[in-house]
Amino acid sequence: VTGLTGAVLCIGDELLLGDIVNTNGSWLGSALAAVGVHVVHGATVGDDRERLVTAVRRAMADADVVVLTGGLGPTIDDLTRDALAAVAGVGLTRWPDLEEQLRARYASLDRRMPEAVLRQADVPDGAQPLVNPQGTAPGLRIEVGDRVLYALPGPPHEMTATAQLGVLPELAERTGSRVTTRTLRCAGIAESDGAEQVEAALDALGGVPAGVDLAYLAGSGILRVRFSTDGDPAVLEPLVEAARAALGDVVWGRDEQLQPAVVGGLLQAAGQTVATAESLTGGLVAAALTAVPGSSAYVRGGFVAYATDAKSTVAGVPAEVLAAHGAVSEPTARALAEGARARFGADWGIATTGVAGPDLQDDQPAGTVHLAVAGPDGTRHERWHFPGERDRVRVVTVVQALDLLRRALQDAGPGSS
Amino acid sequence: VTGLTGAVLCIGDELLLGDIVNTNGSWLGSALAAVGVHVVHGATVGDDRERLVTAVRRAMADADVVVLTGGLGPTIDDLTRDALAAVAGVGLTRWPDLEEQLRARYASLDRRMPEAVLRQADVPDGAQPLVNPQGTAPGLRIEVGDRVLYALPGPPHEMTATAQLGVLPELAERTGSRVTTRTLRCAGIAESDGAEQVEAALDALGGVPAGVDLAYLAGSGILRVRFSTDGDPAVLEPLVEAARAALGDVVWGRDEQLQPAVVGGLLQAAGQTVATAESLTGGLVAAALTAVPGSSAYVRGGFVAYATDAKSTVAGVPAEVLAAHGAVSEPTARALAEGARARFGADWGIATTGVAGPDLQDDQPAGTVHLAVAGPDGTRHERWHFPGERDRVRVVTVVQALDLLRRALQDAGPGSS
Repeated sequence: VTGLTGAVLCIGDELLLGDIVNTNGSWLGSALAAVGVHVVHGATVGDDRERLVTAVRRAMADADVVVLTGGLGPTIDDLTRDALAAVAGVGLTRWPDLEEQLRARYASLDRRMPEAVLRQADVPDGAQPLVNPQGTAPGLRIEVGDRVLYALPGPPHEMTATAQLGVLPELAERTGSRVTTRTLRCAGIAESDGAEQVEAALDALGGVPAGVDLAYLAGSGILRVRFSTDGDPAVLEPLVEAARAALGDVVWGRDEQLQPAVVGGLLQAAGQTVATAESLTGGLVAAALTAVPGSSAYVRGGFVAYATDAKSTVAGVPAEVLAAHGAVSEPTARALAEGARARFGADWGIATTGVAGPDLQDDQPAGTVHLAVAGPDGTRHERWHFPGERDRVRVVTVVQALDLLRRALQDAGPGSS
Repeated sequence: VTGLTGAVLCIGDELLLGDIVNTNGSWLGSALAAVGVHVVHGATVGDDRERLVTAVRRAMADADVVVLTGGLGPTIDDLTRDALAAVAGVGLTRWPDLEEQLRARYASLDRRMPEAVLRQADVPDGAQPLVNPQGTAPGLRIEVGDRVLYALPGPPHEMTATAQLGVLPELAERTGSRVTTRTLRCAGIAESDGAEQVEAALDALGGVPAGVDLAYLAGSGILRVRFSTDGDPAVLEPLVEAARAALGDVVWGRDEQLQPAVVGGLLQAAGQTVATAESLTGGLVAAALTAVPGSSAYVRGGFVAYATDAKSTVAGVPAEVLAAHGAVSEPTARALAEGARARFGADWGIATTGVAGPDLQDDQPAGTVHLAVAGPDGTRHERWHFPGERDRVRVVTVVQALDLLRRALQDAGPGSS
């Protein structure tokens, strides 16, 4: 590994006690990797001065760059400033202009400023404050020997804003090796099958070149195939294209794209609309589609047809279909999709019915799922069996239902309506 | 602090690189705290033998008990077994009965077993395997000096199952100090207001007794007020009761209860059913209600009435109400709740309409929300303004909508239908 090594140190009793999940750590790991810093050390430490000093020293022993988050607030539990001063062997000085900024901020909010807030204007000697565009506590940057330490506030939106302004640009410039990443996003394929197909295609090109990393990341029904390099980005495109050709129709997106936004983009490009009819997913398909800002341009609405008779009385499934085939069946899925399309006056209808579990339904095992998409040119159906518990079955069903709509939209083409 | 100290060490390049969020760390932090182990050290380390050995030694320097997760799989990147053997200064021996179990497991799945899988039968000398009820890789327990190390598999469902079976009971017995926790769960109150009310009530009782911890945990529209002690649990109940009385009607649950299950329990106790009509939440209220196993007993279904005209054509809002008051209004919210109740034949209807953002709608700012609940005794309405971005507005709206239904159900009483 060339370039800089990094350590990420997250501070707060609430992290050690598991009261909150440490999303700062994963954000920083990924952001540092993207600017060519190889993270080799991660640590969580509580609000304890001695343990914090030990943790900072260990991080400095392991890595060129140490990024800390948390412990910069105004209370006596906020010990990051003290720990940095101790590690650097310096004192703390209150900066008048930082003090002035804190007073001005409270005045502008028309709030009384507790005196303790001014601790946030204390800076270890030799350190520089980092602008925090989202909050009162500035970050800090300090060099100790040949190590550089950055302390960031703990609240995630303050941490990311401060890092983007005052940490990542400097590190990108130092490494000179901005990492380029290209990702293919897939649904409906197992990690092992995806890897086999991609690797056969890359072998035909002579294998993965030196300096390129290839990773498979699977979760919640989505497989990401990720190529990255800190060398010439142009080397990636032929690899990505070969992988895409090998994977075929399971690829629904690239890089940071999200599935509901991809489907929404196809709907908008076609000038078409969608409606949903959900049983086992209970509203999650509609919720995913409407999570996208601006989705009111193409989402008409949907049914949650949870009770069996509501599939007929509300969502338009003929009673004889339900009686003959049951709620969890291909004909019911098709009728739900067609009912949503007709009753909401949408171009497309998308339906889910199945057994989320844990119990059997109509003698069918948990994980049995029927999907249907009704469109201008007819209705298509898929039957799946998803392993796992209730929550996972529901989430993976949403992914696969949106993917069925994506493929139908792509097959219909941009000018199909 | 009495009792044992603990360290949690999470292993895997994907954690350092931020490819996945470390939920294992928070689960273990909270599980260890509950059996009286005070977690003082958390670390993340990549798939690198030397760094892993260093990280284990540091954890052992800091804590009596070290819990590791990850690195127990069959690949050459799985180095936990090797690292434990190195730290203990022992060799690895393949256990014939573990080998037999692995072969039998693959045979029962009718799958070919790659030879590398047998590495999972290698045990450091002096260690004991821990049963993994959810996967192929057993955990390991080894004593090194006066430290005890537990290695658990990385996949979360395997990690939790293995810990619950082979780690937590032993630690609970060793500490003898099971920590008792009592939590009040609230909606619709700010952390600072909740804290002020609780502390005034506790001051009247003479304050929080020594040995009792009081914490406020706020997030996603829910405030948790948590009392804990490793002493006599009986000391907690009067404190919880005083806090509950002071907080009043904002308390919707206790301890580990989840909001949709609480609402579902009230519906089941009353023998009643519910239907939804959602605009800005786009299906999230229905999805929350149906996340509970067995919810088909009381959830009839719902509408996602996203397009304004669908509120009328599908969900039963009179066109003149929409024309006179707009989609984001009290009359529309009331009509949506009543429409859901009537069209699904449910005892209760619950409705959301508002502006999720980021843009204004009908000149109303993002965060404007109208909720309504229609029931056997009429319809109630609330207007809220929630700060934050689109996702947060939607999530907090779900919490507050379910809470409006909860209060209506409690006011109606158990024998109201």
